[in-house]
Amino acid sequence: MPKLDLDTIPQTNATGYPVAYAGVVEGRWYQRLAAVSGLSDFGVSHVTLKPGAWSAQRHWHEDEDEFVVMLTGEAVLVDDSGETVMRAGDCAVFPKDDGNGHVLQNRSDTECVFIAVGRPSQSDCHYPDIDMHLTGGRFVRKDGSAFG
Amino acid sequence: MPKLDLDTIPQTNATGYPVAYAGVVEGRWYQRLAAVSGLSDFGVSHVTLKPGAWSAQRHWHEDEDEFVVMLTGEAVLVDDSGETVMRAGDCAVFPKDDGNGHVLQNRSDTECVFIAVGRPSQSDCHYPDIDMHLTGGRFVRKDGSAFG
Repeated sequence: MPKLDLDTIPQTNATGYPVAYAGVVEGRWYQRLAAVSGLSDFGVSHVTLKPGAWSAQRHWHEDEDEFVVMLTGEAVLVDDSGETVMRAGDCAVFPKDDGNGHVLQNRSDTECVFIAVGRPSQSDCHYPDIDMHLTGGRFVRKDGSAFG
Repeated sequence: MPKLDLDTIPQTNATGYPVAYAGVVEGRWYQRLAAVSGLSDFGVSHVTLKPGAWSAQRHWHEDEDEFVVMLTGEAVLVDDSGETVMRAGDCAVFPKDDGNGHVLQNRSDTECVFIAVGRPSQSDCHYPDIDMHLTGGRFVRKDGSAFG
């Protein structure tokens, strides 16, 4: 049956971020919808941000496009152009390699929910605000050294 | 700015369907969001179905996955397993080559809106209910002959 039963798909707040940078995504609960339902052309995440939670550390990917559509609640999109409120039905795009770090922050006192589409991250990912970089699937400091 | 101004993106109800099969999509108004905003990994359509309109003729693609999330209103998803109502926040997946023709039909008296994600159709597309087939980017009858 094509309609997904979202209640049966595992939800997690797991992150690969080093401890120093993981706090902001502790309240980010997500379900990976694609692989469990037989899709492989692209990934789809159903994301719930608890109050205070961020979608990620502000970042941009070298070789993966991303698309987001808000379903419920409100988040603040922070990028190089400033801050933009995102509400149900609002869409945002994050083209690969555009050098514009982006993040959704839930600054409200209720949950917000959005869908994020993108291929799994295989290229380098840049984090303009913190001393972290993703390369070869591994988080390192900007000088290439490992986190302790 | 990553947030899309949907009011500035062209909307169309264009279809490549032959006249005999185009009636059901006359009230399907869509905006292609990806190319105009710099995305190339996948396509994204913002689709409004007027009352009575269908998302497409019931179909399945040989080599393109599709994902849909409802934003507002209500549509009936018709596929080989029957009929399923889709409302805001509901998600559906249509894995490539699954042989399960699908369509969203707006049987309500108000518009419904959804986001559809998928790569542009390059493979053959099958239409189980009508005498039509998509191959080589061209709509033909099931015996391969051209529409008159």
